[in-house]
Amino acid sequence: MTLDNMVRRHGSWIESGIAEGPVVSSRIRLARNLEGYSFPGWASEEENDAIWGELSKIFKSFADPFVAFGMAEIPAMDKEILFERHLISNELSQQDDSCGVFVSEDECLSIMINEEDHIRIQSLQPGLNLQKAWKAADYIDDQLESNLCYAFSPKLGYLTSCPSNVGTGMRASVMLHLPGLVLMEEMTPVINGISKIGLAVRGMWGEGSEAAGNMFQVSNQITLGRREGDIIAHLEQIVHELIDHELNARQRLMEKQPLLLEDHVARAVGILSNAKLMSSGEALNLLSALRLGLDMEILNRISPRELDTLFISIQPAHLQRIENKDLDPDARDVVRAAMLRKYMKNATQGTSNK
Amino acid sequence: MTLDNMVRRHGSWIESGIAEGPVVSSRIRLARNLEGYSFPGWASEEENDAIWGELSKIFKSFADPFVAFGMAEIPAMDKEILFERHLISNELSQQDDSCGVFVSEDECLSIMINEEDHIRIQSLQPGLNLQKAWKAADYIDDQLESNLCYAFSPKLGYLTSCPSNVGTGMRASVMLHLPGLVLMEEMTPVINGISKIGLAVRGMWGEGSEAAGNMFQVSNQITLGRREGDIIAHLEQIVHELIDHELNARQRLMEKQPLLLEDHVARAVGILSNAKLMSSGEALNLLSALRLGLDMEILNRISPRELDTLFISIQPAHLQRIENKDLDPDARDVVRAAMLRKYMKNATQGTSNK
Repeated sequence: MTLDNMVRRHGSWIESGIAEGPVVSSRIRLARNLEGYSFPGWASEEENDAIWGELSKIFKSFADPFVAFGMAEIPAMDKEILFERHLISNELSQQDDSCGVFVSEDECLSIMINEEDHIRIQSLQPGLNLQKAWKAADYIDDQLESNLCYAFSPKLGYLTSCPSNVGTGMRASVMLHLPGLVLMEEMTPVINGISKIGLAVRGMWGEGSEAAGNMFQVSNQITLGRREGDIIAHLEQIVHELIDHELNARQRLMEKQPLLLEDHVARAVGILSNAKLMSSGEALNLLSALRLGLDMEILNRISPRELDTLFISIQPAHLQRIENKDLDPDARDVVRAAMLRKYMKNATQGTSNK
Repeated sequence: MTLDNMVRRHGSWIESGIAEGPVVSSRIRLARNLEGYSFPGWASEEENDAIWGELSKIFKSFADPFVAFGMAEIPAMDKEILFERHLISNELSQQDDSCGVFVSEDECLSIMINEEDHIRIQSLQPGLNLQKAWKAADYIDDQLESNLCYAFSPKLGYLTSCPSNVGTGMRASVMLHLPGLVLMEEMTPVINGISKIGLAVRGMWGEGSEAAGNMFQVSNQITLGRREGDIIAHLEQIVHELIDHELNARQRLMEKQPLLLEDHVARAVGILSNAKLMSSGEALNLLSALRLGLDMEILNRISPRELDTLFISIQPAHLQRIENKDLDPDARDVVRAAMLRKYMKNATQGTSNK
């Protein structure tokens, strides 16, 4: 599997088509470090090299194939693509030597090496599937632990570069699509409420990113003094509450302002089908309206197949890879608009919107 | 001819289809008053009644049929319709007793009685046709003068209620569609320049109205000490300069930012074809983009037939008359959006936009 295949193929978890409704995806991240090595920020190049080499050997030995992307070897654009696909963090995409990522065939697993910690196992699943994501991460964790000696304190748990991750080293998060709460202007109190119970709300691309396209990542803040199962159960409970809030907001919109909702969706269809220039920010918001329209059955027959993929493939690096050339932001707006018009044409073929 | 016929029929000057390019229409207005009567603002009810009665007799005697609309007799909604069709002023639409308007079959001529002056002859023509409008106004003026005694000073000319109209009593104006200058943000200096040479720039519905839909009325300010022919020639010259400015702005847009222009037009098509709610302000701006798209041949086969009519028929009173019921603003937004979707469907049938 090459990056080109990943960008062009269909069938990754992102477009599994089961991610309807407010929940887009579930993610488990485990932070691990190796006994006897300094944390990446303090480690010498030799130490980092040794870790990257050691992990490469281990991943090659696995029965399931993983693709290795060394940050020193791949061009900047490829790092951007991995970032846009949620396979590496923004931080790793900025780094070069002695670090990289191992990605599973279906992109459900990605293991970053020498990012903030020596090892960051990420497990992604479509929809609300924290348990499945946890099991997959836990399996890789066990496999690695049978080959390596983790930095572990019997009192604290797994030791990590940043104290906020010490303990389980786990962050569980769920990506939610919450256009109803945004349209009803109820998102701010929801975010405030969530923060008070030890969870964090972030944008589509994690820490520091804005909530474009009405996408929100909700995750646990506390990793210390709790068992993984408890953290996941708590997050799941809150996510179920958020789903209820969102569905309730959508229901109220539909009952009280059905035309406002229909107008919101219909305009998105009109603009996506016709615009000649489109920024990624506007595209995300319009795709969000389309996704809402599908969920609310305002759009009857539009195909959801590629919809969630588009949230990623309209991003700058993906666009350039698909077009196979460097494009400045203005040129990207042209190509993005063309891609979306084409999608709309295919998706609405033979479709009559309400 | 009834008001219903006017609203529903096709074929008035507005949709003659010759009003392509930046010029929409030309208008001549003559203010006249009768010797021996106080000006309307100071006149007694008896005087005003006498004038309305006298004029009614004269218009009945004309070979060409005129329809009389007495402001005391018609409902408020009908007055709004006459106003939206540019047949009476906002001021007359607010009045009741002893005043009204006589309208010719083709709506090219409308003669308001007891508005600011006893008689206000308005002559409208599609496109840049000030001469033709002037001749038609002049003809009615002569016919009235052969039956009435005008208040006239050999030194000053025609006497009018407001000193600014004394002299010729004439206001010549041209309605221009200037989206190029607006998009290039060059309209403010143009307006300032025009003001300096004794002309005024107003919005689509005259004094005090905003320039919705990129429509601007340019008219002479000075009526005293000049001959009608000179006033018209001067206005025509400035209008030709404005047309050049506008076409030049469009050309520069097309050369330097063709995609911006195409995007502007394509989005208007998309929104008009899909929106479920539409304010009149937004509709005017989108119709303006459509009109520009037609002029620039960005839209190839969209029918211009009804386009200029829509600028009027999407207005509140017209919408309610067409639907044959009272509609609050929210309900109008729904009906307006539906009317525009229907127009777009018919207009673009079998059309492929560039």
